[in-house]
Order: sequence, then structure tokens, then C-alpha cells
Amino acid sequence: MIPPFSFVRIPHIIFGAGKLKELYDIIPKFGNNILLVIGGSSLKQSGKWDEISSILKKKSINFSMLSILGEPSPNLIDDPVAKFRDRDLDLVVGIGGGSVIDAGKAISAMMTKEDSIKNYLEGVGNKIHDGKKIPYIAVPTTSGTGSESTKNAVISEIGPDGFKKSLRHDNLIPNIAIIDPELMISCPPSISAACGLDAFTQLLEAYVSPKASPITDALAYSGMKLTSKSILLACSTGASDLNVRSEMAYGSLISGITLANAGLGIIHGLASSIGGLFKIPHGVVCGTLLAEATKMNIEMLQKQGPTGKPGLRKHAQIGALLIGKYDTEENKINEYCMKLIETLEKWTKELKINRLGKYGIKEEDIDNIIEKTGLKNNSVNLNKENIKTIVLNRL
Amino acid sequence: MIPPFSFVRIPHIIFGAGKLKELYDIIPKFGNNILLVIGGSSLKQSGKWDEISSILKKKSINFSMLSILGEPSPNLIDDPVAKFRDRDLDLVVGIGGGSVIDAGKAISAMMTKEDSIKNYLEGVGNKIHDGKKIPYIAVPTTSGTGSESTKNAVISEIGPDGFKKSLRHDNLIPNIAIIDPELMISCPPSISAACGLDAFTQLLEAYVSPKASPITDALAYSGMKLTSKSILLACSTGASDLNVRSEMAYGSLISGITLANAGLGIIHGLASSIGGLFKIPHGVVCGTLLAEATKMNIEMLQKQGPTGKPGLRKHAQIGALLIGKYDTEENKINEYCMKLIETLEKWTKELKINRLGKYGIKEEDIDNIIEKTGLKNNSVNLNKENIKTIVLNRL
Repeated sequence: MIPPFSFVRIPHIIFGAGKLKELYDIIPKFGNNILLVIGGSSLKQSGKWDEISSILKKKSINFSMLSILGEPSPNLIDDPVAKFRDRDLDLVVGIGGGSVIDAGKAISAMMTKEDSIKNYLEGVGNKIHDGKKIPYIAVPTTSGTGSESTKNAVISEIGPDGFKKSLRHDNLIPNIAIIDPELMISCPPSISAACGLDAFTQLLEAYVSPKASPITDALAYSGMKLTSKSILLACSTGASDLNVRSEMAYGSLISGITLANAGLGIIHGLASSIGGLFKIPHGVVCGTLLAEATKMNIEMLQKQGPTGKPGLRKHAQIGALLIGKYDTEENKINEYCMKLIETLEKWTKELKINRLGKYGIKEEDIDNIIEKTGLKNNSVNLNKENIKTIVLNRL
Repeated sequence: MIPPFSFVRIPHIIFGAGKLKELYDIIPKFGNNILLVIGGSSLKQSGKWDEISSILKKKSINFSMLSILGEPSPNLIDDPVAKFRDRDLDLVVGIGGGSVIDAGKAISAMMTKEDSIKNYLEGVGNKIHDGKKIPYIAVPTTSGTGSESTKNAVISEIGPDGFKKSLRHDNLIPNIAIIDPELMISCPPSISAACGLDAFTQLLEAYVSPKASPITDALAYSGMKLTSKSILLACSTGASDLNVRSEMAYGSLISGITLANAGLGIIHGLASSIGGLFKIPHGVVCGTLLAEATKMNIEMLQKQGPTGKPGLRKHAQIGALLIGKYDTEENKINEYCMKLIETLEKWTKELKINRLGKYGIKEEDIDNIIEKTGLKNNSVNLNKENIKTIVLNRL
């Protein structure tokens, strides 16, 4: 039986090498007064910024530029919103990594409000955003968070009372997502690795989520099929290969669509709590926990007996996929589950994903982390001891 | 390499048995003045119409009702639009089969225009619709056309100079699609069969289309996986089984999404020309041509040698799927293609799909039909003789 599900809208997607150029024809359809949100230096170093700004000038498009450094905090959103609120913007365009795409999304949403974004963050403020926003176009330059297709923007304040929480509304899904793999070619191996594992984690967690539907299953599976072929290549010999970058970009895009509709699991539960307490890149938390958390989930599903079978079968389908098999024989479910864990462990090693200890996280921090961690839509129920084991094994 | 693609929005989907009830909470969000477009008698006979109208009255929602009989013609759209244009409607809701969903969609779009829909139909008028419309909610009661998730409404005028053409704009995708399999239980076997084969044809043609993307592939495949399990049951012993009806409803929904993004092939090319010339249900044209056209496409792909291999591989993947296999070994491509043709022929027979001759189509009509037939995004190029053979074999 297909369980009941709902599926929110997705952005209008424009995908393909060189597709950035369509941005210049799309912008005038929204108006002539736009805000471009970009990152630190990489877009400028690659020469792309000069190209973009000169074309916009040639087309007499009136634009302001805002540079976002690091993962967005409430101040990083509130300050530019205060500055641009009365400028009658027609459109916000975010061009950059996950932080930039999230920041642009949050800015376009907060431009219609008078107070701080903190008041609208889940579990932080007590207001609910109504979805009113300035139109927003997302142009990712990394393949990771999938923010180009999600309805939320993640905002962090790091410290002992820190948080990493979402501004969320169905209407915050970007109006248009332009996915141009050419923009990802210059992304360095360490970032490609962390982002790629973030995307794969999102696809996997959505696929095994109890909230999964046939739509998210079909999409997550196709995303894992392509990213699993390209993830190691994107961080090594295939970094300049447009096919490799396309497959990773596709995985990221799809991971955003599937997480928005099927939710995520314990890895993202931990990424939220750890990311609020420590300065650690989001993709690294996901990547470092991926194999360990998957191992724990599989163990707990195995302990459940028949009840755990559907969850195990889905993990096995991914394990089979990773060795190029699409049929998952019932008598090989455990074998394919082991294959999944082995492959994820191999990726973590080959992609040189740091352990948590590298970012100052110690054994004595774990209880505080667990206290702030939600299970989200994890494939199986885990107790505090289970979660502690996952973190301990990656310290 | 992932070829460039674009993907238009999809409706907000609410799927599941009993989900019709969400309509009553959604309507007030759009306003208090709505138009309900329904079909002839089946909704009334099933008792659903009494339920819907009494709940709306209880909620003090001001509604008008319009009954659509048969496939929509320009007059069937223009007349109610003229009647309701000045009534300041907040929302149009279409509850019925493909014709009703298309009619509701066209009415919601034409309510913003002053002239006839004929002026905006592709290949008929010379105006282009700008996408402005009154919000539209689609609630299908059959599993077939997928109109609940497409950007077009098919309008026909039957006769020697007849046509079956689309009003089309990305923005005409329904705002919300409520897919409640309970509404499909009462659909009789002959209609379930024709509609089911229409949906399957759409999924198949989108899957093998040159415009297919990894997104449409993943979705079409998942749609074919579920409908192929349920299509015979829905028209026989499983007609009252909600699981069977869910799988068919899912296939229809997905077929709309995939056709909107990957296009269709020769079967729908012929359905358009034949449907304009003769009074024949759309699902029957598709169903009767499905096996024969697939056979011709496979034969022509086989003749192409290596060039035809990717197209054959995709047909083989469907053939394998229909016998429950997800791996498609390269050395078995022809075998799986034959399996596909055999299964489609078996379905046509078991579902008692009429031949074209039953609707007065004769051999001497074929040249005129071919003259008006476009290949659309067919998986392989076909010449007039090939198309003639397809039709002749189903006279």
C-alpha cells in the first residue's frame, strides 16, 4: 500500500553545463533592481564574477552585491535586510555554496518582515514565517546542501548556547534553480568531498526515512545511483570532468528535493546540535558520521526481527546499488547491508574526512550534544546510548 | 553525461486514501467564492457530490457548480467563462475524470481573458496564453490522463476539420492536486482499462523520449513499476482494492509530471489527429496503439544498429521491469524488448481494448490521419509508411 504523502513544489530547474547564461535573460522578467548574494573570493578568483557583473551592466540591470563569509548567522541576515529593505528589490539571486544559497533565501524571505530572523527560527523564536518573500533564484557553485531545492534556510549561532536551526516555509523553495556544473569545476577536493557526502547522506536518510514516498524513493535512488559513481572522482582525477560534476550536481539538487519531502535522520540530528556548539563544516559532520550512523541503524533494524525487515531491505537496496546491482534478492539483504557499510567506510577514508576530535570535540562534550540532538525521521528508533556510540566512534 | 534539461514546477501533491477531506480546509485559504467543475453523473451517483456540497454549505463557502459532459470543446469552455467572468471567483476546483480536470484548468486560465480559448490553442489560434489564471485545484476520479499534474488542457473539436489541441503554459500546472484513490473505486472496468493504458503509454513514451532527464526517468520508471503490477487487477478482481487503485493513481499522477517535462511520442501524435477526426475516447486510442507502436519503434531502433542501442536499452529496461527484473543485462536487450511487446499485447487483449475500426475509422481515412500526425518526441524517427503500418494493424 502506498502510504499517504504530500509533496511540496520544487523550483523550476534549469540544469546543464553553461546554463548560467540563461540567468541574464531570466532576471529582466522579474525586474531591474536586484540583489546578488555571493560568497567570499572563489567566484571572483574564477573570473566568473567579472563575467556576471559585466553582462548585467551591459544589460543595464541595476544590481547590488553582498558577500557572505561563512555559514549564515542571524546578524549576517538581519544587517543586509535592514540595509536593503527600503530599496524595493525585485529579485534576490544567490550564487555560491550552501551558505550563500541559504543566506540569499533567508534574505529574500526576511525582506518582507521588520524584525530579526531569530524570531522565526524553528525552536528559537516563537513566530511562524508566512512565506511572503521577494522572488529568489539559486545558483549553486558546490554540490552539497541541496539548498537550491529546499524550503528552508539554516541559520547558526555557534557557542555553548548555540543553535543551528531553520527558517522554513513551503514558499521559500527558490523560484528557479540554475544548476551549471561548470561552476563547480573549481571547487577544491576537500570541499567537494564534504559537500558530496552531505548530499549522499541526505539522499540516503530520505530514502530510508519512514516519511519516504514512491516519489522521494525514485528520486533519491536516482541521485544515489549517479553520485555513487562520481563522488571519489569529483575529489581526484575527475575534478575537471563535466560529467562527474554533473552527476554530483544532480545528486545535490535531488537531495534537497527528497529531504524537503521525506525528512532526514540521526546524522542531520547530530549535525544540527554539533554545528550549533562547534565551528565545524556541516558537510564534515555528515561525512564523518555517515558510515558509523548507518552501521548503528542497520544493527538496530536487525535486532527488531521482522519489524525491521522493510528498513533493512531499503538499506540493502542502496548497498546493492553501490556495487552496480539493481535487483536485491531477499536472501542477500544482510550481505548488501554489509556492503553498504563497507563502501561508506571506504569513502570516508579515501575522501580523508576528519574525525570530530579535530574540531575540539571531546568525550565530555557528548552528553551535552546528545541532550540537544533530535532523531528527526530516522529509519529506526535509537536510544541515547546508541547515539553516544555513534559519536564516540568518530571522535 | 547528463544532457541539459529543464524541469517545470509540479503541483503541491496531497496523496492518499481519504485525502479528499483536506479540500475543505484548503478552500478557505483561497477565498469564499469558488467554482466546482464536475462531470456527468458518477460523482452524484456515488454519493460523493452530496457529501462535498453539504460540507461546503456547512462551512458557509459560496460555490457554483458546473457539469462538463464529454471531452471539452471550445464552446464548453467559452460559455461558462462568459457566465462566471464577472463573478470574482477566488478558486476553481475540478473533480472528475481527465475531461473535467482539463476543463477546470482551461476555465481557470480563460477567466483572465476576454476572447475565445480557440485563439490560444497550439496550432489553432495565434495568441499565446500568458499564464495568468485563477488558482486551480485538481481532484481526479480516474487514473489516466495525468492532467492533475500537467501544464496543458486538451480541447477538441471533432469533425473533418477537427482538432485536439492544447492550451499550454507552465503556470497552468494546478496549484494543488489531491489524489484520493477512494474516489477511483467506482470507476468501471472499461474506463479503468482505457485510462490505465493512457497513463502507462505516457510513462513509457516519456521514458524513451529523447528529451528524458534523470528526473523523468526515475519518476516514469517508478510509475511503470507500480502500474504494471496493478493495471489488470484494477479492471477485474482488484477494482475495490485501495492498494491497486493507489498504484494506478500514482501512475497517472507521475505520467502527467513526466509528460510535461519529457514529452510524448507517436502514440500521442496519433491520438491527437485521430481524436480530432473521430469520436473515440482518448484512452482507447492510446491503449489500442500502445503495443503496435512500441513494436514499430523497437524494430526501427534495431535497424539503426549502434545508434539505436540507447533507445533499445531503455525499452529493454521496461520489458525487464514488467517481469519483475531491475537489472538489464546487455546481452539480453533484444529478449527484454520482445518481452515488452508481448506483455503490452497481452494487456490489450485482456483489457478488451477496441480496435479503431469500431469507431468508424476505415483504411481510406489513414492518409488523412497521417497528414495531421506529428511524431512529437518519439524515441526514433518514423516515416509515413511506418506510421501507416501501426494504424493499419489496429483498424
